[in-house]
Amino acid sequence: MLEPNKKVTVYMEGHIDSDYGKMGTGVVRYLKNPIVGVIDKNHSGKSMKDFIDIEREIPIIENINSAIMLGAEVLVIGIAPSGGRIPNSWKPIIEESIKSGLSIVNGLHDLLLPEWGDIINQEKQWIWDVRVPQFTPTIATARASSLSNKRVLFIGTDMAVGKMTSGLELYEDLLQREVKVGFIATGQIGVTIMGKGIPLDAFKIDHACGAVEQMVMEDADKEILIVEGQGSLLHPGSSATLPLMRGSCPTHLILCIRADKTTLRSPKNIAIPDLNKFIALNEALTTVVGTYPRAKVIGICANTSMLDKEEAKTFINNISEKTGLETTDPVRFGVSGISNQLLEI
Amino acid sequence: MLEPNKKVTVYMEGHIDSDYGKMGTGVVRYLKNPIVGVIDKNHSGKSMKDFIDIEREIPIIENINSAIMLGAEVLVIGIAPSGGRIPNSWKPIIEESIKSGLSIVNGLHDLLLPEWGDIINQEKQWIWDVRVPQFTPTIATARASSLSNKRVLFIGTDMAVGKMTSGLELYEDLLQREVKVGFIATGQIGVTIMGKGIPLDAFKIDHACGAVEQMVMEDADKEILIVEGQGSLLHPGSSATLPLMRGSCPTHLILCIRADKTTLRSPKNIAIPDLNKFIALNEALTTVVGTYPRAKVIGICANTSMLDKEEAKTFINNISEKTGLETTDPVRFGVSGISNQLLEI
Repeated sequence: MLEPNKKVTVYMEGHIDSDYGKMGTGVVRYLKNPIVGVIDKNHSGKSMKDFIDIEREIPIIENINSAIMLGAEVLVIGIAPSGGRIPNSWKPIIEESIKSGLSIVNGLHDLLLPEWGDIINQEKQWIWDVRVPQFTPTIATARASSLSNKRVLFIGTDMAVGKMTSGLELYEDLLQREVKVGFIATGQIGVTIMGKGIPLDAFKIDHACGAVEQMVMEDADKEILIVEGQGSLLHPGSSATLPLMRGSCPTHLILCIRADKTTLRSPKNIAIPDLNKFIALNEALTTVVGTYPRAKVIGICANTSMLDKEEAKTFINNISEKTGLETTDPVRFGVSGISNQLLEI
Repeated sequence: MLEPNKKVTVYMEGHIDSDYGKMGTGVVRYLKNPIVGVIDKNHSGKSMKDFIDIEREIPIIENINSAIMLGAEVLVIGIAPSGGRIPNSWKPIIEESIKSGLSIVNGLHDLLLPEWGDIINQEKQWIWDVRVPQFTPTIATARASSLSNKRVLFIGTDMAVGKMTSGLELYEDLLQREVKVGFIATGQIGVTIMGKGIPLDAFKIDHACGAVEQMVMEDADKEILIVEGQGSLLHPGSSATLPLMRGSCPTHLILCIRADKTTLRSPKNIAIPDLNKFIALNEALTTVVGTYPRAKVIGICANTSMLDKEEAKTFINNISEKTGLETTDPVRFGVSGISNQLLEI
């Protein structure tokens, strides 16, 4: 894992303002570590504030050497090229980083450790390929159900409906309220952003519940634990809901949806079902007919980015009316209503 | 996979009549390939009929050489020592088998291919470590739901409640009725017995649904497909139910239980819930509120081996009365009632 005090630089060459830079902008937005600079020589001299709405000052810098001069200890790869492959053109950058003594966080499919592991200084440096499971857990035994904290699992009607972003927004909101809150990252982007977590998709069926349980138990002192969701009960290719539920024994659920979708993105022949029925099925699955307390959905996070503001408000009101649940677009309208629900304010 | 015509010998040295020989007796009972002999020099000259209730004649033979003389082409390891490790004392046997030209099916945790792969004759021989996934599937898209056959998934209240045995008994019964039936093996013993299948537990979360779907689609011409169950929705360490359901899109479910258990074997603080509620939750999960047809539980298979015959009958009658479902102990009383349900006879 990435220790919280380590100084970080984020590599985003050529992609600060492109879709491939989403991982980097996520890191800049949410990573708690000090960030000495974002590398992109095309915009060198500017500030990340010129590109995204953030509070802290992060300069855009020329190259690895500039980052070293500013005290960087860790390079986070902030670009996710199509397919998750590492282009050959990055090799000199990776080599320079390693030779300069930087550790590396890599969330891409292509791994760095097999190729570069031999030349790092094992005592001072590490390479973390976050898509590779770092431990073999014991079989889960529902230990999380014995905790007295609140464990909030994000669920969704599909992949890529905003589960991670909504979870991180809730995490930020609770941090600002000085709640003792933790975030269990379960996907490569979340793990890269949080500096710790598990690549759930890469764990074996046999180990998945145990991996989630171990992360939850390591953070058991937190009053509220937010568990990043993966996949969807609705998606025929997704197995993630069950290990997330069994491993975390959630006390609360938050449902994420996309405002413009009436079917899965793929396959399209699967329609998004009635939300109240979908909620009921997810809730039912959090327990096994009385074995644990049943978790309740306490709010809905809708991605309304494709609607204008008035349309978005109407959409949110309609969903809220239909389900009787606090509903918001976390990015547009914040999550304070859901935080209040969770804190019973 | 093990081609259906290959002549097999089963290695059971010292364990024909021990608990560690369960895999071997399972193979002898259910494998369709010709079995030229079972190796155990302690009982050499006897017949497997002296030990288990089978119809075909399988001699017990002295050693690898005897198997070769009888035309063996494949050695199936029929002993599962505690922990799944391969004892050093087996090394000469494995070496002799490989040098004699035998291929090997190995269902143990310890793998053979890494150590012995280099010395096999690649053109004529193979080593199949069945616990290692043999392919990377595409993401599942519920293709199975478009098939017009019956897909019967076995579910259970716990691990090791007889899902595989019950499934194989149903398979045998349907074969005898000349139904065009297939068996999708999903665990190492089932895979060893069937000579094909997937070690579901060893697949990544991301690939598990797709692996099941691929196996179901490869056998799509069968009128009835029996899908071997794994784990349980009730077990906090089990993620297998969801990929089995999503990958196979079952049309029917069969529930397996143990007559003597009121809790999970481990952890014991989880009580076996009311069976009708447990059935309802499993059924609900086979569909996502209307997305596919909902599968119905059509029968219950109870392992009553710890009860005497009269107690077993009483137990079965009580369960049948409580659930309204055809109930049996497949090993003691056969599965014809459940077959009739399935065939709507």
